[in-house]
Amino acid sequence: MRQSELLVPTLREAPAEADAAGHRLLLRSGMIRQLAAGIYSYLPLGRRVLLNVERIVREEMDRAGCQEVLLPIMQPAELWEESGRYTQYGPELMRLKDRHTRQFALGPTHEEVVTALARDEVNSYRKLPFTLYQIGTKFRDERRPRFGLLRGREFIMKDAYSFAADWDELDRTYQAMNSAYCRILERCGLNYLRVEADAGTIGGQGETHEFMALADVGEDTIVTCKQCGYAANLEKAAFQSSLSAEHMEEKEEREAGEVSEVLRIATPDVRTIAELSSFLNKKPEHMIKTLLYLADGELVAALVRGDHELNEIALKQVLGAEELVLADEAALASHSQLAVGYLGPVGLGLRIIVDVDVAAMQQAITGANEAGMHLSGVRPGIDFALDRVERIRFAAEGDRCVACGEPLVFTKGIEVGHIFKLGTKYSDAMGAAFLDRNGRQCAPVMGCYGIGVSRLVAAIAEQHATETGIRWPASVAPYDVHLIPVSWKDEQQQKLVLELEQQLLDRGLRVLVDDRHERPGVKFKDAELIGLPVHIVVGRGAAEAKVELGSHQLALSGETSRIQLTAQEAITYVMEQIQHR
Amino acid sequence: MRQSELLVPTLREAPAEADAAGHRLLLRSGMIRQLAAGIYSYLPLGRRVLLNVERIVREEMDRAGCQEVLLPIMQPAELWEESGRYTQYGPELMRLKDRHTRQFALGPTHEEVVTALARDEVNSYRKLPFTLYQIGTKFRDERRPRFGLLRGREFIMKDAYSFAADWDELDRTYQAMNSAYCRILERCGLNYLRVEADAGTIGGQGETHEFMALADVGEDTIVTCKQCGYAANLEKAAFQSSLSAEHMEEKEEREAGEVSEVLRIATPDVRTIAELSSFLNKKPEHMIKTLLYLADGELVAALVRGDHELNEIALKQVLGAEELVLADEAALASHSQLAVGYLGPVGLGLRIIVDVDVAAMQQAITGANEAGMHLSGVRPGIDFALDRVERIRFAAEGDRCVACGEPLVFTKGIEVGHIFKLGTKYSDAMGAAFLDRNGRQCAPVMGCYGIGVSRLVAAIAEQHATETGIRWPASVAPYDVHLIPVSWKDEQQQKLVLELEQQLLDRGLRVLVDDRHERPGVKFKDAELIGLPVHIVVGRGAAEAKVELGSHQLALSGETSRIQLTAQEAITYVMEQIQHR
Repeated sequence: MRQSELLVPTLREAPAEADAAGHRLLLRSGMIRQLAAGIYSYLPLGRRVLLNVERIVREEMDRAGCQEVLLPIMQPAELWEESGRYTQYGPELMRLKDRHTRQFALGPTHEEVVTALARDEVNSYRKLPFTLYQIGTKFRDERRPRFGLLRGREFIMKDAYSFAADWDELDRTYQAMNSAYCRILERCGLNYLRVEADAGTIGGQGETHEFMALADVGEDTIVTCKQCGYAANLEKAAFQSSLSAEHMEEKEEREAGEVSEVLRIATPDVRTIAELSSFLNKKPEHMIKTLLYLADGELVAALVRGDHELNEIALKQVLGAEELVLADEAALASHSQLAVGYLGPVGLGLRIIVDVDVAAMQQAITGANEAGMHLSGVRPGIDFALDRVERIRFAAEGDRCVACGEPLVFTKGIEVGHIFKLGTKYSDAMGAAFLDRNGRQCAPVMGCYGIGVSRLVAAIAEQHATETGIRWPASVAPYDVHLIPVSWKDEQQQKLVLELEQQLLDRGLRVLVDDRHERPGVKFKDAELIGLPVHIVVGRGAAEAKVELGSHQLALSGETSRIQLTAQEAITYVMEQIQHR
Repeated sequence: MRQSELLVPTLREAPAEADAAGHRLLLRSGMIRQLAAGIYSYLPLGRRVLLNVERIVREEMDRAGCQEVLLPIMQPAELWEESGRYTQYGPELMRLKDRHTRQFALGPTHEEVVTALARDEVNSYRKLPFTLYQIGTKFRDERRPRFGLLRGREFIMKDAYSFAADWDELDRTYQAMNSAYCRILERCGLNYLRVEADAGTIGGQGETHEFMALADVGEDTIVTCKQCGYAANLEKAAFQSSLSAEHMEEKEEREAGEVSEVLRIATPDVRTIAELSSFLNKKPEHMIKTLLYLADGELVAALVRGDHELNEIALKQVLGAEELVLADEAALASHSQLAVGYLGPVGLGLRIIVDVDVAAMQQAITGANEAGMHLSGVRPGIDFALDRVERIRFAAEGDRCVACGEPLVFTKGIEVGHIFKLGTKYSDAMGAAFLDRNGRQCAPVMGCYGIGVSRLVAAIAEQHATETGIRWPASVAPYDVHLIPVSWKDEQQQKLVLELEQQLLDRGLRVLVDDRHERPGVKFKDAELIGLPVHIVVGRGAAEAKVELGSHQLALSGETSRIQLTAQEAITYVMEQIQHR
């Protein structure tokens, strides 16, 4: 391909919208452009990367025995009402009406469509198991689209759905998909972790794992144990609490009978834990955070230590609630006695769920349920009842692994894949059924498996971003080799470039020739931005068939970034580099 | 691929919705399923056909030097307002609001997005010419979706957009796209015609051609001349009128001075041409049809002969109107003197555009502008003025070719491709500009080029439909060879099938093995429905490595549909058949 004919609008500066290193470079290298918030156009180089990722995903899905389909983007609202998700999904579901005012959703996933298909077409165990997948455009009206392709509103996804006669059969498919996902991420050159996860919105009755590409801009927190290899996302992570030395001292004090009394402290205009901590010069771990929730309409209180974060999924499970939302102003207004900002468990008059670590405190600082006042010396179990003690917080750094007791480590990740054991949630709700070997009617046991294809592009860009460009792995790079004549007008250089191009094409490689009449500095800068695995620079040495070669490999080795070679040596080098593509 | 693992829900009967032969077979062979009116799911076999067509389109676009991109489906309404199409496109444009109530359109085409891209990124003649293309999902809220994939509301299209510095450069791209389109349709095994067309809604300032797959269910009428090869769609077709023998007689009568007088005839409850024709026992060609239009708000009348159809595009051009609509009841109500059903040119009191063939009539029957009354013996040019005589009707069968005078022939076609010279319509409207060689600001000259990818699948199905199944051309068939053991339980048969499968796979072929425990009749019927190019049936002859072979080729030759061969001969035969894939 001649670069002069290719639309690659490189930029010296990234647009102001760019908020992550990979995103900035995708824009600067002319691979993508934003059309609206969270909605992007893929220009020719970006499209090539995306097609390469799609190809890898397709090959691995086919190898895992999945069947490719293509399901509609526009889905009748009635289907979503059958599964109960039409209201449940909330404002993230894009909705529209057709000319007959019939309601449709733009698919963010396809559980409903695929379950309806199975309901209509699959009625016997002899047709099970099978897995359908598709690669296509999805829509999700994110409240805060950001990081370019990482969290968009229109994006490319591979979604797959498996149907099995029983849980064992599902488990085999789940394992096969797990392996396929690992291969995909490895082939994409990603540094990733597979973590235990929580079923979240899609719902499900079995285990679920996420595949996380490690990156500082990742929006997910991963909890790992370096000792035993345990890895889970924050929502799901199990942990043992490690009581601090100070708590241990307090405990000893109490045992020695030296217990302080409850004191009222005037704390005007001090509402948050951070404000209180700085006002009293005490650490948040000595305080109790009192949070009010509406659980299926009932106002309840939840207590966690000041330095901990409440896990709403855990609280919801503890309460057995269908719906759990943080109480808003309207809900609080109906309880006029509540002093917002000064809440505490003493004399609150609501059902209270207490986190294990709060119950273990000897004494604590809490709100006094009176504007401008806090209490110190509050003793859990003495000054307020411990009717319901549960684990309702997230792990925190310093907590320990439940398996081996080592300290847990937190890292940031981008969720690029997610596999779920759905069970019969959708088949039950939508009445999909088949006759088993004994003629009994059964609900197929489903799994679902998603990979963010455009998000993979973003994650690769993020992990392979450098100061000057993205070093694309050979497997997904838009071309294999960048041929850069120092001067395209120089006849000897042009001749050698065209010879090299032909030889590389003959070997099945994809070659980009910078045939533009630009200064060498401009060409080199653009080549760095575009980031193909190998650069061959043809300059003055052309007369003796000498070239300079640069590659990701050389750059990573930290040695001189380019080496001098004959044209033939360069071709040999390229073939060695590329063969693992 | 093992058929037992593939989701191919074949049907003995087509669903009631199916309204064309190809559509019925696509449903019966389990390739597609309807989700909502005009919205289809592609099941595994259908997806494979679609992917094959996509591959052919992509290869030919790349060969023509186009660059693949991927542009968003969701497009901000503001862009469509810039081009003026947001209102102009009407109810066929699917519209929605995001969570911030911002308006979006679901792209039916991408002129706006691509012109905005060029406006932002292309500012010099050195970056021209270039052509961008994409293959993706499009939306159009058809009033009457039908014939399955032929006229859907969600469909797959390849759209391309070229940008050139001048009209000559555009012309070269246009010719290259023209050739690419011919190759695509040939490779898809389609019988097609390239016809002159009218620019229609997309608008444009230059020539435009349509590619029509010939089929009885086609919604377009193609006008051709067998003598000289002229071909155009009905809207665009040029013609010479052939006056009938009766008209000639009348003309002679008039020349002889024997002219009849204008007579009033009572015609109670007779309003349409058909009713009048039967009431008076006169042919429609002796009558004048008077149609009222609102041209930019002005009520005007247009006259065509009773047996002719008015061409609104021609009338609009004649009037130089921005907007032309048939006058509705509301418009007519404001002219209370108009007797709807009994309109005529005599004493009408409106501007009148007269078709050439009406002007040539010696005498005619028309409405009397009075309820229940018609006039006979009305003489154009005498009883009403011929201020504006123009060609405002479509060609009719019997008309003659303007080039060679031979009678024109009408056939039906499916519009599968369309190429346009847009000119600067969009670049002007949206302010895209570049600096030419002399530093002058110019608008890029654009072309656009569409192929209905899912419609190609439908057109192929339509042309290759038989009583028992679709005979897919090898280029797009979901698999190359269908291996059908009469009994999968028979060890010798199974062994031979597996050997044949391996040998065919080794030769790079795609093989479907019917490993189901079904009766042979069921397998054969399904195999006919699926319609792979070659069937190899392994039955009792398996012990001597004998097989029976059937193929489209044999079926078309009309000889016996299957031949007996050794397994090795069968492989040789297959390789010969498939090599032109």
